[in-house]
Amino acid sequence: MSSSRASVGTGRPPRPASTGLRRSMATVCVSGTLDDKIAAAAGAGFDGIELFENDLVVTPWTPAEVRARCADVGLTIDLYQPFRDFEAVPPAALTANLARAEHKFDVMAELGVDTMLVCSSVAPTAIDDDELAAEQLALLADRAHARGIRIAYEALAWGRHVSTWDHSWRIVARADHPALGLCLDSFHVLSREVGPAGIAEITPGKIFFLQLADAPRLSMDVLQWSRHHRLFPGQGSFDLTDFVHRVLATGYTGPLSLEVFNDVFRQADPARAAVDAMRSLVTLEDSLRPSEVPATGVRRLPAAPPLSGHAFSEFAVDGESGPALRAALRGLGFAHTGQHRSKPVELWEQAACRVVLNSAVTRPQTPGTAAVSAFALTTADPHRSRVRAEALLAPVLPRVRGARESDLAAVAAPDGTSVFFSRDDDWRADFLPTGEEFSGAAGLTVTDHLGLAQPFDHFDEAGLFYRSVLGLARLTTEEYAAPFGLMRSRAFTTPDRTVRLALTAALLRRGEWAPAVVDPQHVAFATADIFGTASAVDRLGGTTLPVPDNYYADLVARFALPTDLVERLRRYGILYDRDQHGGELLHLYTPVYGGRVFFEIVQRIGGYDGCGEANAPVRMAAHRHLRLSTS
Amino acid sequence: MSSSRASVGTGRPPRPASTGLRRSMATVCVSGTLDDKIAAAAGAGFDGIELFENDLVVTPWTPAEVRARCADVGLTIDLYQPFRDFEAVPPAALTANLARAEHKFDVMAELGVDTMLVCSSVAPTAIDDDELAAEQLALLADRAHARGIRIAYEALAWGRHVSTWDHSWRIVARADHPALGLCLDSFHVLSREVGPAGIAEITPGKIFFLQLADAPRLSMDVLQWSRHHRLFPGQGSFDLTDFVHRVLATGYTGPLSLEVFNDVFRQADPARAAVDAMRSLVTLEDSLRPSEVPATGVRRLPAAPPLSGHAFSEFAVDGESGPALRAALRGLGFAHTGQHRSKPVELWEQAACRVVLNSAVTRPQTPGTAAVSAFALTTADPHRSRVRAEALLAPVLPRVRGARESDLAAVAAPDGTSVFFSRDDDWRADFLPTGEEFSGAAGLTVTDHLGLAQPFDHFDEAGLFYRSVLGLARLTTEEYAAPFGLMRSRAFTTPDRTVRLALTAALLRRGEWAPAVVDPQHVAFATADIFGTASAVDRLGGTTLPVPDNYYADLVARFALPTDLVERLRRYGILYDRDQHGGELLHLYTPVYGGRVFFEIVQRIGGYDGCGEANAPVRMAAHRHLRLSTS
Repeated sequence: MSSSRASVGTGRPPRPASTGLRRSMATVCVSGTLDDKIAAAAGAGFDGIELFENDLVVTPWTPAEVRARCADVGLTIDLYQPFRDFEAVPPAALTANLARAEHKFDVMAELGVDTMLVCSSVAPTAIDDDELAAEQLALLADRAHARGIRIAYEALAWGRHVSTWDHSWRIVARADHPALGLCLDSFHVLSREVGPAGIAEITPGKIFFLQLADAPRLSMDVLQWSRHHRLFPGQGSFDLTDFVHRVLATGYTGPLSLEVFNDVFRQADPARAAVDAMRSLVTLEDSLRPSEVPATGVRRLPAAPPLSGHAFSEFAVDGESGPALRAALRGLGFAHTGQHRSKPVELWEQAACRVVLNSAVTRPQTPGTAAVSAFALTTADPHRSRVRAEALLAPVLPRVRGARESDLAAVAAPDGTSVFFSRDDDWRADFLPTGEEFSGAAGLTVTDHLGLAQPFDHFDEAGLFYRSVLGLARLTTEEYAAPFGLMRSRAFTTPDRTVRLALTAALLRRGEWAPAVVDPQHVAFATADIFGTASAVDRLGGTTLPVPDNYYADLVARFALPTDLVERLRRYGILYDRDQHGGELLHLYTPVYGGRVFFEIVQRIGGYDGCGEANAPVRMAAHRHLRLSTS
Repeated sequence: MSSSRASVGTGRPPRPASTGLRRSMATVCVSGTLDDKIAAAAGAGFDGIELFENDLVVTPWTPAEVRARCADVGLTIDLYQPFRDFEAVPPAALTANLARAEHKFDVMAELGVDTMLVCSSVAPTAIDDDELAAEQLALLADRAHARGIRIAYEALAWGRHVSTWDHSWRIVARADHPALGLCLDSFHVLSREVGPAGIAEITPGKIFFLQLADAPRLSMDVLQWSRHHRLFPGQGSFDLTDFVHRVLATGYTGPLSLEVFNDVFRQADPARAAVDAMRSLVTLEDSLRPSEVPATGVRRLPAAPPLSGHAFSEFAVDGESGPALRAALRGLGFAHTGQHRSKPVELWEQAACRVVLNSAVTRPQTPGTAAVSAFALTTADPHRSRVRAEALLAPVLPRVRGARESDLAAVAAPDGTSVFFSRDDDWRADFLPTGEEFSGAAGLTVTDHLGLAQPFDHFDEAGLFYRSVLGLARLTTEEYAAPFGLMRSRAFTTPDRTVRLALTAALLRRGEWAPAVVDPQHVAFATADIFGTASAVDRLGGTTLPVPDNYYADLVARFALPTDLVERLRRYGILYDRDQHGGELLHLYTPVYGGRVFFEIVQRIGGYDGCGEANAPVRMAAHRHLRLSTS
């Protein structure tokens, strides 16, 4: 099906959907030196940047050159950040701090930036005296005002005496200076007990700057949490829609500015990270009430059309991996039902389970390997699905369409997989019937889920991509120990569960010692009777993954299952899981084909909703042992 | 100098020095499936393993086969771990738990292991009732006793009701059952407020098992800290010598068993990780009082001989990187003073600063690159240094010695660098004088430190290696944000500061987007007058690294330095740092040569003791800009 692929992550992406709100990104969000960061922000369509002092200090460009360079690519510098440990100090320190500030005002004048971020002091010498803090900040604001500069005061969650937004607001209100206002950072607000409710009471115009970051809920020191684990909006657990709503309700009209400290993003390709950042902002804005965003000439994001299932999964194969996959599919009861009209592409089917084997994929691939090169989802409106994806900066893939062939819209996911949008089963008309039919004996009914290992740098990006582009919801998030290191998994789904995607990544990027399958991918098919299916697969000569006896001995101890059930599970190498509501999963796997791909058969009982992550370590070890025993 | 290199990390290392204490390692310490782990533990010379249930569950070997396999390679199975959520439950749950335990006793009988670890319950349903816990544990001990099994009860630091060792001891004492004792885990003891002082009061014989783990002091949730950040003894901040001393004082004679959950070790080559683990135990035992360890036929570790300086640093060069380094050395005032008697190896000198350029290193190297292939330290007893290194499982390097050439003992460090031990300057006799002499104008006096980037998987291993093998002390540990990601650094030194090693590694393993120099290495030379040196380097036509003007503007604001001093620093591209005691560092860098190596010149004032880590991000950005501007 797919035959041309966009080069993901290179080239200028389409302009993002606009709402009229200004979008900014702190230079700390992405990796590189200042030239990399400016290029990345501009390339992703940001309007401005927050310039982090350290990025300026290490650049060979003068501040005036930085200003010109930003202007050249259409960026303003919206904030100079941060100035630290200023307020509530003894008189001698105040003099030194004001002198220090004047140096920074000089730099800001050259940069052409009019707002300076002052973080609440973390110095052990800071004095716990709001009146002193207000007085000294007013002095600073006086100096700033004379230079046409505004001071945005921000409560760090780990500030020495001022660590909550409401405390910082009391100080700013007390100082009552036109050049002194607040900087609100969603992390510092939402990581603390003081909720955002009172934001409505902030005097209109006194929020000078709004910084946005999401984060997972972690039980750890707030400073470490903030410095290592922030995420772009929509990737974590904070309710940023509510937060931004409250801030906009005060009349705030400044930029929505991302300030995300994240260990992975700090190492990753800045051009891609900036696109991820922009996607997060567009998605966040889309979640706001239309009345809250300026409506001048805006292009709202089209709503995600409802999805109703996995249409097909496509594997790229070659002369070596192709035969292995064909044999595997036959062993699972599939038949080769169709041959593409114009390409070396085969359709394999069993009920509504469809697999496409593509020998013409142009993507470079190690000889003998196979990969999930594409998957197609059934959508109520393929065109709208594609327009939404494009507005969310998904690279839209060009496609060569032959006569009488359907026009499947496709975009590239962060791991390079093509995602097709199809309405109904029109796409099947591209295949000429071979006359083969599947017998139905194996009883597979439909594709249950796809399991796709993600590139380390793009795990959170991929999650946001699928949520925002496809309109999926997060289903599960897990972290577990596997034989070759810790793993993360996160699954996404539709409300009716007809589409499920399970993403995985190693918790630490793999090193040289990695005997496991690198970046495995799999397609899971559903059955209503896994024992019937397993028995049919046996008769068909299909191969399933051997599971150690020790696993079953442990099952007996863990779940107190009836002995005869465990014996039946053991006989067919069926794994078992039970959720906290009593839902059960029975599932089995095939060996790995083409070095990377495999199939799974699942039977869900009683509303089991996950993807069997608890058994992933067993599967990984079994795959390795199988490889060792056959090599 | 070095011409043959051991293959680091492969092959069976020498047997470690023995003290008569049994050494064990939990299978959770290292990566892989059970076969990898058993081979690793045996290869590193362990006497036994703790078998983690998950490792057994996923292995295709039966328990009897696991037992036989361990016996084949000389390992006993010392503990089966863990059994969870057993005690202080309602009666119905007790029946189920006892049934579960019987299943595990069956497995243990097959395995031939006589001690089961029972962790304090974390179940929300556990009842806070010591008497009930004691009673139920006694019941379990009864069942165990009948099977010849002992129960070792351990307080998890995050146990539901029992989270401190003294609490677990009160329960064990109350149960008063011969088959019920304690498992003490240094992490669970030392991570909590309840200190280890009271361990002396534990009834002799009631500590059934001792688990050892070190950890850095982190401000985070104790469960996450324990599961991700444990380290081998000597790599963290816990006083394990004192802890083990207290446990041995109760008459404990069981194994010293490592139980280390660490995200990196779980991914790294298990054979190497096990050697690292063994080195940590040998070092720990060496720190115990001789009276505390059984003395039957033991071979104590020879004491580390005093070191008195860096003798030389050796660079591997080729036809392209060699000329670049020669020019760089001349520019710094070095002269080519000696030519090796039998090899294409040059000696370059300036006062006591010695650099060796070796064109004959056999290690595979990308054409055009250079690397620090070896360094030599002056020791009071080279033979003893080598014997100690060997007893600590350092691979001893074979060496081809020509006529009239000195016999430098050498071992391989974890990053593959050769470490030579030399007494005085005997090794210089290997070089025939060229007649060239250095002028002395540049004023470099001695090698101040080496900066060596470490392979990601081996950062903590390297630190322990240098501390234990060379007898160095930890000087600094830093974590900082650099342009291409977060970095870790750790420096080690001698009491008199004549030897300093600064190790660095990225906090996350580098990915594809890594435009910085990968694994940079540098040699820093000391001067008593950096302005005089910089001026001389100018006259000699030497090249130093340009530092951005913005850096100096920031210096003025940060340190309130006199303008004329800042102007002089700026003129020569000299960086500045000041420590909290007022000590100052003035330092400058050269460009990168051979893709990887550079030199630094440092002037220490007023007892500055670090290695200028604060300026590392400036240096890294400057190196990148220089490369961009010259490419």
